[in-house]
Amino acid sequence: MQFSDRLFEKAKPIWEKNHQHPFVQGIGHGTLEQNKFRFYMVQDYVYLMDFSKLFALGAVKAKDTRTMGKFAQMLDSTLNVEMSLHRQYAERFGISSGELENAKPSSVTLAYTHYMLHVSENGTLAELICALLPCMWSYWEIGKELNNIQGAAGHELYGEWVSMYSSDEFGSLSIWLIDLLDESVVGKSDEELNSLEEIFLNTSRFEYMFWDMAYKEEMWPANE
Amino acid sequence: MQFSDRLFEKAKPIWEKNHQHPFVQGIGHGTLEQNKFRFYMVQDYVYLMDFSKLFALGAVKAKDTRTMGKFAQMLDSTLNVEMSLHRQYAERFGISSGELENAKPSSVTLAYTHYMLHVSENGTLAELICALLPCMWSYWEIGKELNNIQGAAGHELYGEWVSMYSSDEFGSLSIWLIDLLDESVVGKSDEELNSLEEIFLNTSRFEYMFWDMAYKEEMWPANE
Amino acid sequence: MQFSDRLFEKAKPIWEKNHQHPFVQGIGHGTLEQNKFRFYMVQDYVYLMDFSKLFALGAVKAKDTRTMGKFAQMLDSTLNVEMSLHRQYAERFGISSGELENAKPSSVTLAYTHYMLHVSENGTLAELICALLPCMWSYWEIGKELNNIQGAAGHELYGEWVSMYSSDEFGSLSIWLIDLLDESVVGKSDEELNSLEEIFLNTSRFEYMFWDMAYKEEMWPANE
Amino acid sequence: MQFSDRLFEKAKPIWEKNHQHPFVQGIGHGTLEQNKFRFYMVQDYVYLMDFSKLFALGAVKAKDTRTMGKFAQMLDSTLNVEMSLHRQYAERFGISSGELENAKPSSVTLAYTHYMLHVSENGTLAELICALLPCMWSYWEIGKELNNIQGAAGHELYGEWVSMYSSDEFGSLSIWLIDLLDESVVGKSDEELNSLEEIFLNTSRFEYMFWDMAYKEEMWPANE
Repeated sequence: MQFSDRLFEKAKPIWEKNHQHPFVQGIGHGTLEQNKFRFYMVQDYVYLMDFSKLFALGAVKAKDTRTMGKFAQMLDSTLNVEMSLHRQYAERFGISSGELENAKPSSVTLAYTHYMLHVSENGTLAELICALLPCMWSYWEIGKELNNIQGAAGHELYGEWVSMYSSDEFGSLSIWLIDLLDESVVGKSDEELNSLEEIFLNTSRFEYMFWDMAYKEEMWPANE
Repeated sequence: MQFSDRLFEKAKPIWEKNHQHPFVQGIGHGTLEQNKFRFYMVQDYVYLMDFSKLFALGAVKAKDTRTMGKFAQMLDSTLNVEMSLHRQYAERFGISSGELENAKPSSVTLAYTHYMLHVSENGTLAELICALLPCMWSYWEIGKELNNIQGAAGHELYGEWVSMYSSDEFGSLSIWLIDLLDESVVGKSDEELNSLEEIFLNTSRFEYMFWDMAYKEEMWPANE
Repeated sequence: MQFSDRLFEKAKPIWEKNHQHPFVQGIGHGTLEQNKFRFYMVQDYVYLMDFSKLFALGAVKAKDTRTMGKFAQMLDSTLNVEMSLHRQYAERFGISSGELENAKPSSVTLAYTHYMLHVSENGTLAELICALLPCMWSYWEIGKELNNIQGAAGHELYGEWVSMYSSDEFGSLSIWLIDLLDESVVGKSDEELNSLEEIFLNTSRFEYMFWDMAYKEEMWPANE
Repeated sequence: MQFSDRLFEKAKPIWEKNHQHPFVQGIGHGTLEQNKFRFYMVQDYVYLMDFSKLFALGAVKAKDTRTMGKFAQMLDSTLNVEMSLHRQYAERFGISSGELENAKPSSVTLAYTHYMLHVSENGTLAELICALLPCMWSYWEIGKELNNIQGAAGHELYGEWVSMYSSDEFGSLSIWLIDLLDESVVGKSDEELNSLEEIFLNTSRFEYMFWDMAYKEEMWPANE
């Protein structure tokens, strides 16, 4: 069993709750209220700005030019392609580029991104991958599952989301990271593997909290 | 008006909610359920381990030996004096050193500490101070207020807490940081000051969430 | 006067020594011994691997998606285009990709890259730019000057080097960084500007040492 | 054989050159020109400011409160005790505190400290220890050897230096770090051990360069 198989097994109960969450189900069945998706898109944009920095830190932590080059590509395509697609998609919901660029992070967005950023700055490449992987991998899992719902990929508003995250192209990024992780843990002690697993589970939990935050449109728990 | 006065004014509405929170009131009036305080002590210990790292990063970011030396003292006294006092105090609630050392952080503890750690690693000394100050300063404010409640400082279980955080000695650390911050923002642009204020308000909000998490004894929002 | 003009004036005496250095003159006049250039190419490749990380850290430190996106492009093109050109060019001198990938840094290469890396990780975006700019800018200056020497750009071995670093395309990267620096220092205090100038002069001095190290083919000062 | 034994064997040829260096011999025989020692003291003070940051980063990287607490002690005693002793000692050579505080690092000082700082910020605790250990350990070795020279410890000017670095108290810090390193490399792969060895050898080489720089009173290789 590869280490990534172990992570998948351990994270499964958390990921399954993602799949069943009304926000995710609402995307798949096209029943999600637009204001909830709107809230999500703005926070997702704020999230992506910090998330992309993990690819930059991947290039800093990697030891060979090929791995560095791959992280560089992911950083470049996130910032110069994906975020522009996000801006176009957001426009269809009446969200301007200005609103996206100036949005403030919610407490969950801050918590999630800063957890990943500190782990990545401070840790090894394997720790960095365990921090960033759950987001990409669990999105792919959700994308593929929702794509099985009839009409989901063709939905006027949410179809684009389903198509993007169920695509082979998007999945191939997770596969590359999974392979890199499995390679980089060869010979690691149980203690190190447990610590990596903890990071993977923590970001999986934050991922769940992100869906829930979007559904509740919650900036900070207590209104000031 | 000093920059710290501005921060105090802006954070006031959040800090006042701290003071009124049932957890804080429960300490002052001696009515807090022990299991809630127990939960708090464990998370506070986990928190302190990462919080102390901000003093270490203060020594890394400071530019002169005097400031470095002061951060070194704070780091040393936190790790080698305060945490040992925490362990003794915790024992009175039946919490062993082993339980403290092996405790896992709750989602709020993780969120709060990693926000501060990333801001501090990545930012200037002024940003670091804005991240770490709300915890110390707001504890001092709470300590002083609770100390006005008759019998609070003498309470069998919680009196020690009240005495510690209302003390001049504890307060002098905040005063030193406040002065250092006011000095270090001289000549900073409005944009920089706004960004510093945002950090200060974010950690103030996380501070509130920490009280609330302890009151609810909440590890992660969704049970797995 | 822009801040970058001040930096240029201050660094001039150091940069002029670069231009007059026998290594640089040897490239321009086509008289440089091949083994010296060979040594340089290997160290330059090792240097570039770490130098590219400064672009990654630029994406981490930048505050807006446009600046982040531009650093991402520079990182991507350095790792996925330039370094491949370097490998091809190196082959003409009989240096294999394997030799490049496994080469050890000389003391000057280590010193120079780690100075820039620490300043960039630990500092502001302006500090990062002051660390990375002298290399790019001074290469462009050298490239343009050598390109005035008749036959330099057409030289069988070194012409490619002269063409690359005198090109408008290469120069435009420096111009972008210079503008970004001038923008980002608006409103900074004298103390901050002096500290930025010091970084710029330090990397300028390391740049000179790099030429000298290549000319002497020196790994570490004392042979072991 | 412990990993530290392997490091000692590998570094031996470099460390032996330290012992034979005229600067070190000059301390032991009391024949070193005062202006050379004066130059050394100023650079050593600048060096210590950054070197102490490695202890701070040790507290950031460590995983348990005991190790964190020990690094905190080392940081505190370096900044609040040792540097004050350095200031007193320096006064005997006519070097004022102001001169020490405002001194600029030489190229070798910059190179050495920034190499260690980047390795430590970016790496694991084991990498951090391999970066900082050669300085402490090789000083202890030199101290013990010079202390065998008759009269060395009693020399009016340099005796204090010999006594300090040959003391059991100073040696115990190295022993603690050596033990911590040997513990922390258990189960590490050959590749990881080789990479740790490289760090240890690099700082050993920089250590030699530091003696040589002091002897030559060299700020930067080329005078501007």
